Amino acid sequence: MKPYRLEQVTIHPQLQQEAQRMQRPEFHLRRLIAGPERLKQYSDKGGGLVMDYSRQRLDERTRDLLFMLDEELALRRQFAAMCAGEKINRTEKRAVLHTAARDFTETPIRVDGQDVMPEIRRVREQMKQFSAQVRSGAITGSTGKPFRHVVVIGIGGSYLGTEFVSTALAALGDKQITLHYLANVDIHNFGAVAAAIDPETTLWVVISKSYTTAETAANTHQAEQFMRDQGLDPAKHTVTVTSKGSPGDDPSHPVLQTFHMFDFIGGRYSVTSAVGGVPLSLLLGYDRFEAFLQGAAEMDRHALEAPVTHNLPLIAALLSVWNTSYLGYPQQAIIPYASPLAKLAPHVQQLNMESNGKAADIRGNPLDPPAGVVIFGEPGTNAQHSFFQLAHQGRAFPIDFIGVRTPHYTQYDARSKGVTNHQELWANLLAQASALAVGHPSEDRARHFDGNRPSSTLVLEDLGPLNVGRLLSFYEARTVYEGFIWGINSFDQFGVELGKVLADGLRAQMAQRNDRPEHTFQGVDPISTAYLEMLFGKDLV
Amino acid sequence: MKPYRLEQVTIHPQLQQEAQRMQRPEFHLRRLIAGPERLKQYSDKGGGLVMDYSRQRLDERTRDLLFMLDEELALRRQFAAMCAGEKINRTEKRAVLHTAARDFTETPIRVDGQDVMPEIRRVREQMKQFSAQVRSGAITGSTGKPFRHVVVIGIGGSYLGTEFVSTALAALGDKQITLHYLANVDIHNFGAVAAAIDPETTLWVVISKSYTTAETAANTHQAEQFMRDQGLDPAKHTVTVTSKGSPGDDPSHPVLQTFHMFDFIGGRYSVTSAVGGVPLSLLLGYDRFEAFLQGAAEMDRHALEAPVTHNLPLIAALLSVWNTSYLGYPQQAIIPYASPLAKLAPHVQQLNMESNGKAADIRGNPLDPPAGVVIFGEPGTNAQHSFFQLAHQGRAFPIDFIGVRTPHYTQYDARSKGVTNHQELWANLLAQASALAVGHPSEDRARHFDGNRPSSTLVLEDLGPLNVGRLLSFYEARTVYEGFIWGINSFDQFGVELGKVLADGLRAQMAQRNDRPEHTFQGVDPISTAYLEMLFGKDLV
Repeated sequence: MKPYRLEQVTIHPQLQQEAQRMQRPEFHLRRLIAGPERLKQYSDKGGGLVMDYSRQRLDERTRDLLFMLDEELALRRQFAAMCAGEKINRTEKRAVLHTAARDFTETPIRVDGQDVMPEIRRVREQMKQFSAQVRSGAITGSTGKPFRHVVVIGIGGSYLGTEFVSTALAALGDKQITLHYLANVDIHNFGAVAAAIDPETTLWVVISKSYTTAETAANTHQAEQFMRDQGLDPAKHTVTVTSKGSPGDDPSHPVLQTFHMFDFIGGRYSVTSAVGGVPLSLLLGYDRFEAFLQGAAEMDRHALEAPVTHNLPLIAALLSVWNTSYLGYPQQAIIPYASPLAKLAPHVQQLNMESNGKAADIRGNPLDPPAGVVIFGEPGTNAQHSFFQLAHQGRAFPIDFIGVRTPHYTQYDARSKGVTNHQELWANLLAQASALAVGHPSEDRARHFDGNRPSSTLVLEDLGPLNVGRLLSFYEARTVYEGFIWGINSFDQFGVELGKVLADGLRAQMAQRNDRPEHTFQGVDPISTAYLEMLFGKDLV
Repeated sequence: MKPYRLEQVTIHPQLQQEAQRMQRPEFHLRRLIAGPERLKQYSDKGGGLVMDYSRQRLDERTRDLLFMLDEELALRRQFAAMCAGEKINRTEKRAVLHTAARDFTETPIRVDGQDVMPEIRRVREQMKQFSAQVRSGAITGSTGKPFRHVVVIGIGGSYLGTEFVSTALAALGDKQITLHYLANVDIHNFGAVAAAIDPETTLWVVISKSYTTAETAANTHQAEQFMRDQGLDPAKHTVTVTSKGSPGDDPSHPVLQTFHMFDFIGGRYSVTSAVGGVPLSLLLGYDRFEAFLQGAAEMDRHALEAPVTHNLPLIAALLSVWNTSYLGYPQQAIIPYASPLAKLAPHVQQLNMESNGKAADIRGNPLDPPAGVVIFGEPGTNAQHSFFQLAHQGRAFPIDFIGVRTPHYTQYDARSKGVTNHQELWANLLAQASALAVGHPSEDRARHFDGNRPSSTLVLEDLGPLNVGRLLSFYEARTVYEGFIWGINSFDQFGVELGKVLADGLRAQMAQRNDRPEHTFQGVDPISTAYLEMLFGKDLV
């Protein structure tokens, strides 16, 4: 039988031995990186980004073995199958075509014999026209005022990617439009948004593929009530981004416009579709959104075409699996030395943990231990003053550092200690990666640094839309390649279903009690019953 | 010798056996929580909060053993010593008196024979007067306009706690003052703040104990240049929060006012001192800040006085250590079902990981494995739509859920599916805790849920200042008690020093190159040298 996951490949035991070898003192990172050629040998550029993995815990022998996984597990062929529209999301029998959302070639991409590109191009054109009309004031709210606030109602994949990109590119926004996010069903989220907007000049963008997501439905309902209370017509203040024919695409419930999303693009991979496209075009103008798509497309081509030895997201995926499954690190941090990338870690947290946090392989066999890692992170230098104490002296975890070569805001050029803020930032990035790798032994154990803590560094030329698109696609492709290596389906998420089922039952009990105060809670476990009683007035303890 | 850390106590091997026992199928959480009395037996209230730990993986026998640690390691006696001003931060020979910052009793608290309370009361009174004068317009900027923007320049402990509290209590702000944070040395952070404020009506609050923090110094320098460029007098637009006699408390460099901080309050424990007090009083008014202090003081008394069997932060610490050191979970999540608590996890990330991410015990002996865990989290329900796939089916991690019984914004009462948004939120919290514990076995492995994933639930009555203060103190006391159990010093942070030393060297090299383009980088490793060359124009790869 052909191997389809890591433990089945012939070199798996060798990789386990490699991990043992790397525990030996002579393979401490301090030694591995000492040679003058280390950086040259363990760094590369591609898809518009530079990746330095010189401070990962491996040498030529390890790397050669890892590179063999491409052939053994047909990694790039699987990636090509994905881009070609094959239904690699087997459990849901769906194609996986987020790459099509930023395809600008003339090549058809067929699903069930049907080219999907004309529909994708049609939605792009619709976003272009609509965003231009809103921004020019040709489309207004029901009282004739131009839109100044856009509230995105959406959660998870309909929220986090867009939040990442809008934060990353905030400096390029025209200030005429302010973007707000209403994700959480928590009424505090609604209340805070309601307090921050001017209802007459607010456009609500409701994003839900099925249009049945409980949180989004509740928030949309709340928003419509709020608009009516203000004497506004919700139909003139709402657009929807949803599947064709969903309850959000229903002519009997009119809205300004509906933008279609497709079942071959999963939520966490959807920021380059209308999910991100509608709010980002409104905030930044369509042209900047398209530049962002072009950047993503460039990295897609690199991920598809570059040989394993030079393929940045594939190498990053191999390193991620090496660190997780062989060296035994159960978590990874993403530390961008760039405030505008503050929302990258929360985005990748969803993208990666929801994709690869799986306990079954693609053929339905149990995985023990499960695949996936915990991803977390905050921007540097903030992270240094927060949790880096543990990074240096506590449990080690691999880190992706991200640096930006050229900043915006070059007008603020005051120097402290002879350097600009941007140079100070880089001095810190370099110092951290070095200190973590090299360490500093001391007789005084409180001041002892083990070192040998791995990291990679990604370098972006600047924080323009092209590079943000490249970075997005890099993490998407890395996630997908990790899934191929672990032999899992990175595109379903059945793990979120049980909680929804239980919430349905609890909600129904609450609704009945709302209707009839004498209703006795039924079919609920004793602990949850006590909480339900608490919400209707009793003490819990 | 008297035991001072976990591995030395007589019951340590028994706890290891307990952990083995809990792996057996009959101790699956599904069974442990089945009885009708489970919640009553494993929940408590104290310090104004309710904690339910019924879904932690332990039974009476385990709990009795854990409770014995209080006596064996003198945990509450150590806490009392802390509150009494003993120099329990041994490496730095300092007292640890964040509890004094919210002490409203008449009892003296002495350090080196000197009562610290008069100085603390004096600074409180100064904050009260100053915030009232700014808010009333009696103190204005150099052009006579009242202050409308407050920019906090500070990083780490001078930032994260205040950000948590200001976000939690944002709904209570008067809207007359907008708070901004300038933490990161990244010029993008400065640029974004500069674009969001009106310089004439902006007050800059510079917070640094030593007043030598590199990031804060660079940002302050940048801000002063910016003010002068606008024709404003920095002395009339700046206050400092710093140690007596620091460079920020220097009459030759005048500012509006200086508020003192003390060496017996560490940065990550400092939000109840002037570090949080100055910005929070400006945002919320001093009275609300004092209510927040009262809440913290209430939980402090509970942490100090309640017996181990009813002491919420102590029990939480025992559970944290149980989960980490015995059951082997290397990470913990904090998931507040409350959007305003969005910044709790980043705050506790610093508080806990910087305090307890240590590889040496309090007497300087090496710890292997190191103490501490990775803390991360996002608000629910957002987290459900982000990384909860992994929580349910991937690597398990313990979770602190937090629920709020009564929300603000009760005016938004539209119902979906028969329930309010607040009820929908609670239905989800309850469903998640239950689903994680109970699981749902399935033949279809993609739809199989192991369950047996532990969580606790904290319940707050509402999101007023009292409860936010209680919550802050709860996590501080939990962190401190964890440190006592592991036998470490939770109050130093030597792990951040190596990076600073290396950054100093790199900065000096950059400064020299800035001065003299022909300067050749010296004393820098080959990888960092290549990056330095890149920053001055060469390609890295």
